[in-house]
Formats: sequence, C-alpha cells, structure tokens
Amino acid sequence: MSAKVFSALWSEIEAIGRVSSGGYMRYALEQPELVLRDWFRNQAHRRDMPVTDDGNGNLFAWWGDQWGRDAVLTGSHFDSVPHGGGYDGPLGIVSAFLAIDQLRAAGYTPAKPIAVVAFVEEEGGRFGLPCLGSRLLTGAIEPARAAALTDRDGVTFGEALGATPAGPLPGLTSRIGALVELHIEQGRQLEAPVGVASAIWPHGRWRFDFTGHGDHAGTTRMADRRDPMLTFAYTVLAANKEARLAGAHATMARVEVEPNATNAIPSLVRGWLDARAADTPTMDAVVDAVVKRATERAGRDGTEVVVTAESISEEVTFDTALAGRLSAMLGDAPILPTSAGHDAGVLSAKVPTAMLFVRNPTGISHSPAEFAEPGDCASGVDALATVLRELT
Amino acid sequence: MSAKVFSALWSEIEAIGRVSSGGYMRYALEQPELVLRDWFRNQAHRRDMPVTDDGNGNLFAWWGDQWGRDAVLTGSHFDSVPHGGGYDGPLGIVSAFLAIDQLRAAGYTPAKPIAVVAFVEEEGGRFGLPCLGSRLLTGAIEPARAAALTDRDGVTFGEALGATPAGPLPGLTSRIGALVELHIEQGRQLEAPVGVASAIWPHGRWRFDFTGHGDHAGTTRMADRRDPMLTFAYTVLAANKEARLAGAHATMARVEVEPNATNAIPSLVRGWLDARAADTPTMDAVVDAVVKRATERAGRDGTEVVVTAESISEEVTFDTALAGRLSAMLGDAPILPTSAGHDAGVLSAKVPTAMLFVRNPTGISHSPAEFAEPGDCASGVDALATVLRELT
Repeated sequence: MSAKVFSALWSEIEAIGRVSSGGYMRYALEQPELVLRDWFRNQAHRRDMPVTDDGNGNLFAWWGDQWGRDAVLTGSHFDSVPHGGGYDGPLGIVSAFLAIDQLRAAGYTPAKPIAVVAFVEEEGGRFGLPCLGSRLLTGAIEPARAAALTDRDGVTFGEALGATPAGPLPGLTSRIGALVELHIEQGRQLEAPVGVASAIWPHGRWRFDFTGHGDHAGTTRMADRRDPMLTFAYTVLAANKEARLAGAHATMARVEVEPNATNAIPSLVRGWLDARAADTPTMDAVVDAVVKRATERAGRDGTEVVVTAESISEEVTFDTALAGRLSAMLGDAPILPTSAGHDAGVLSAKVPTAMLFVRNPTGISHSPAEFAEPGDCASGVDALATVLRELT
Repeated sequence: MSAKVFSALWSEIEAIGRVSSGGYMRYALEQPELVLRDWFRNQAHRRDMPVTDDGNGNLFAWWGDQWGRDAVLTGSHFDSVPHGGGYDGPLGIVSAFLAIDQLRAAGYTPAKPIAVVAFVEEEGGRFGLPCLGSRLLTGAIEPARAAALTDRDGVTFGEALGATPAGPLPGLTSRIGALVELHIEQGRQLEAPVGVASAIWPHGRWRFDFTGHGDHAGTTRMADRRDPMLTFAYTVLAANKEARLAGAHATMARVEVEPNATNAIPSLVRGWLDARAADTPTMDAVVDAVVKRATERAGRDGTEVVVTAESISEEVTFDTALAGRLSAMLGDAPILPTSAGHDAGVLSAKVPTAMLFVRNPTGISHSPAEFAEPGDCASGVDALATVLRELT
C-alpha cells in the first residue's frame, strides 16, 4: 500500500478530538470518541460490513458470518489518555479497514469470518481501569463492578453505556479463533518498519491516599504540621529511585489535592503509582519497597498512607507459535516485548493473540509528539493484510 | 455580651456555603458568598445603615455620614479558602454588627462615622491574589490588572464584578480615620480571650512552572525521562527543609499537573510556594534557597523551572501607638504578631490600622476544624465595642 492511500483515510480522523496542545482528548463514550464510533459505523457501512455491539461498548464490523466459528479479530481502541497522541489505538482500527480493502482488491475471500473491533476504554482515562472493554468481553471483570466505576464527574460507566454491561461474549473461545492487534510501538526498540510482540510486561496501578491535617499554611508552626504533601513528594522520589535500582519502570504522574489552595496545608493528597517490570516478582518488589518507604516517611510526617491496588495485569506471553508464524510471514520481522498494556494482552488469556507493532522513530507515546511515518503505517497495513490472509 | 446573643446572630450564616467536608466553599462573588453579601445588606437595613459599594466589590454599611471625615471602619471578609473554616473573615463582620448593637443599646452616639466593611476576595481563593479588594481600595493594584485576573474557569474578576474596578477610594486618607479588623487568631499564641496585633510577617506566593517531556509512563526508559513531577517533589521537600532551618514557614500546598493521567509522564507540573518569615531578609533567603535547589534538581532531571512571584506582601507593623491604646483600653490585652495576611495589613500602608484577635483554642485555621468558643467571640464583641467607642 502507498503512504498516500494510508494518509487519505488517516486524515479523516486526524482532527477529531485534537485540542490546542496538539494532543488528543478522546475519553471513552464522550464527545470526540462518540464521533469516532460513528466514523467506525460509516466505514463499516461503506464496506458492507454489518456492525454489532457486544453490550459492553465494544464494536465489531463483520466481513463474513458473525455467528461463524474461529473468527479472526483485528483492531484496537479509539480512546486516548488526556492530551495523548493520535496513533495509540486508532492506528490499529484504520489499518484494519485498509487491510480488508487490500484483501478485497486482490480478490481474496476469507474462509473464516474477519471482524474489525473497536474496544472501549482501553486507556482507563475516563473510568480509571484500563482495558475495561476487553476485560468485560473476556469475563475478567464482573459487569456490576464495571458498571459502578465512576469518572471524574461522578458519572458511572453503566450510565455512560446506558445499560449494565452484558459481560463475557457467549461462546467466546469457539467464536473467536484469534486476535491480531496492530499498534504503534511505544519505545525505540523497533528498528524495522514492522515487528511482532512477544510479551507484555506485568504492570499495575496503585492509589496512595496520604492523609494529614488541614491547616493554615501561613500560621501553623513547621513542627506542628501533619502535611501529606511532604509524604507524597517523598514517595514520588522513592518510586523513581526504586525503579531505577530494579531496572523497572515506576511513575507517579497523577495527583489530586484537597483543598489544593496555596495557603492551606492539605488534608489529603492522593497519588497514583504506575509500576511495570519484566517479571512479576520484580514489579512486586518495587511496589513493596515504595509502600515501605512511604509508610516510614508518613510516620515521620505525622501523616497516614493507605495503598489500594486499582488494577494489576500479570505478565502476558503472547502465543509463541503464532508470533513465530507472523514473524516468518513477514520476512523474519523482529519479535520484541512491550511494557505497555493492551486489549490484546487481556484477550490472550482466552484466545490465541498476537500484536503487530509499527515503528515509532522517537519512541514518544501518550504525548502530542507521538508520531509514525505514513510509509511505515502503510507497511503495517501490508503486514496486517498478509497476516489476515494467512490466518483465514 | 452573652455567648447566647452572639450565637443567635452567628447561627444565621453558619450553614451558608458549608459542604460535606464540614468546611466552607465561599469563593468571592460566587453563590454562597453572594448570599452572605445579601445577608450583609439585610443586616445593615435592619439597623438603618445605608450600604455603599466602592466599585471594587467592597461593601460598607454606614452608621453616620458616609461623606464625613475620619470614619472608623471595622469588618473583615466573607470569602473562604476551599474547605476552609467558618470564622476566618465572617467573625469580624458579625462582631462588627453586634458591637454596634451594643453601643446603640447603651445609648452611645459616635462623633465620627462608623462603617462595617466586607472586603472582597481576601483569600485569593478564586482569582489568586489575596486581599484583592483592599488592594484596589488603597491603590495597591492597578484596576486594569485586577480586572484581568482569572479564576479556574477563565472568568475574569472584571466579569465577576460586572465592571472594571473603580480603584482607590477618592479622599481615602481624609475619609477613613482608622480601621479595626477583628479576626480569629490563627495559631495557638493567644492565651487570653482577646489580643491585639503588633505586626504581620512578610509573606508571598511564588508559582513554579516545572516543564519536562510528556511521554508514556509504561514504555519510556527511566534514563530517557524528563519528568517534571520529580523536580516538583524535590522542591516540596526542599521548601520544607529550608523553612525549618531558617525558622520560617514555607508550604507547597497547591499543584496542577498536565495531563494528570496515571500512565502519562507529565509535560507540566505547576506548584505554588507560600513563604513567610518574621522579617523580609529571612523570607527572601528561604525563597532564594528553594529556587536554587529547584533549579539544580531541574538540571539533573532534564526539566526546566520558571519561577514567578505572584504576590509579595512586605512586613506590616501596625500603628504602635494605636495598638498600645487598644491594649490599654482592654485591660492590658496581650499584643502579638501573626504570620497570616489580612486586609488590615494592606490598609495599614494608608491609614492607622489595628487588629483584634479572638482566641483559637486549637490554633487550627483554613480547615473545617477551625473553631472559637462562643464565650470568647462574645468577649471579642465587647472588646470591639469598647474600641469603637474610644475611637469615635
């Protein structure tokens, strides 16, 4: 496929949800993402692909019998982190439609159903739990629990969806034969235009509630303070240090403060820890060390800290045979791990799953500066078309 | 005055703007504070006191000729910090009306005008600049600059006020003879029910803009990061340490993060430093040390820091003769300094100014736990009535 053909379809969605930062505000089931979901339905309609919804907010556009066996799913998600990049997610959906165009133009007819999928709330940017759509589809989360998750305005996922989620797809493992998710690479590990995923690092989110004593910032003697901002600040630095020592990744990038006023010592500082490592014991050790140091510091600050694991994703090893087949189909494309979570990682617990990565020249992701060359994106479409043909 | 009489009037405003935290959300010129301003007008009306507005949002209720010379002003402010206490501000206004009741009940007629004043935006909780109303009244800020200050929703002070502020009161120094502001004490320094202020520590607010490189929190190698949250966290701890070493107060209690997502390294962390000390050289030395350490750390983190002084209030020494007179009138009431800013501090640059403090048993302020005993509040009214009688 030419870069020009890729860019023609890509340009249809490029401006949707882009804000003045250059980044994207595409929260699941809110305005710009709803426009993208309409765009998805229109693209499917143009291609005579009936669209179904699994009752969890995930959309499927079918080439072939949606009730057939061993369908091959391909796609990704539309939602972004706030001020995120435009490629993380949508690239996989746009590429899926283009790969189907390519197969059809070549006169190919698949023996198994193919579906383009758009998963809902992959980033957890709105309701706090990443891969919510794929967790529901595979039964990894109770529908009632998912329905009760709230966004920052107190709207529940159930309210946003307009219903209690339906939960796992009936006949999941017989109806879905494989999932192939194409995604922009999120580091600088991939030197070829296209690669194949081997594994996803285990990763998780922990919420730290630091509580102290709200008081006047001007008049309260330093010795009388119980300031939870100090404990939070120490924990931010401790997380960074522990991750470096362990060769892991740890980040505290989100914070909420009450009352968040210049002249009032906070009563509450809430921070979130994102931790990832090549294996679960390493990740657990980093988190344990951070919690231990936060607790010690809280003792010195006269504050308290309560830690809640909000989501933990075990290490995912993608189907090794499938990854090897894909690499071989693509002329020995490199096989590499990732430390980013994906719906494919959730699906891999139930069905054979693979991922294709498109080169990211700067390695930047979750930022307005995220970018892939159109030529590499076109190579991604070619690779995906090859894979879909071989698998169906 | 009996505690019961005090509590009867106090109870009229006690519930206005109180939220589930037990604290108050009384932002200047927003709903609960507008209700309090109506209450002010009603109280004045009940007492046949005409109300004037100085065109800056400050309200005056007059006993005597508003165009007379050497008026004695008494009052405070209605606005609170978010989730602040109920006494900081309103106690001075309620006590002023009650002191007038007491003087009238005793058949007293003042030879000079007395005005109860409600200053607007004392906390800077909405538009970021504390003592905005008194700064405008005294010409300490340009009306055009005040008009352009924005709240968190982008509403300007000029829009909230419905006009460009009028600026300094014409004939200020001849029309206002003195200001006496009654206020809850904000530390635990006062052991008697009522005290007199000697001075206000110099204090200020500095905004620190820490910028780095937005990126994916999961995939970006620790060594490749330029994470401004680290620089912010280090600065929080540095401010605490430098203040302790210098016997000063320094606090970073407010922070804003972009994008503030769990899985995205921030591109920007904005933190505010509140610093105060017994004298200006000490305060300046603390701030300089914090800026120096923040800048050094930014160099190590690959981030940048830009520091902006948002407001600096020099040390205020209240009129020493007036403070001595007040103390003597009140049976040698203790004279003590405060590290909290007040409208009285701004007025003191132009007219003789004094403050009365009412005992705060816990020392807590800017917090839902802020409290004064009704008996002490009644003693405050008695003291204020004595002072107003002596001054007029």
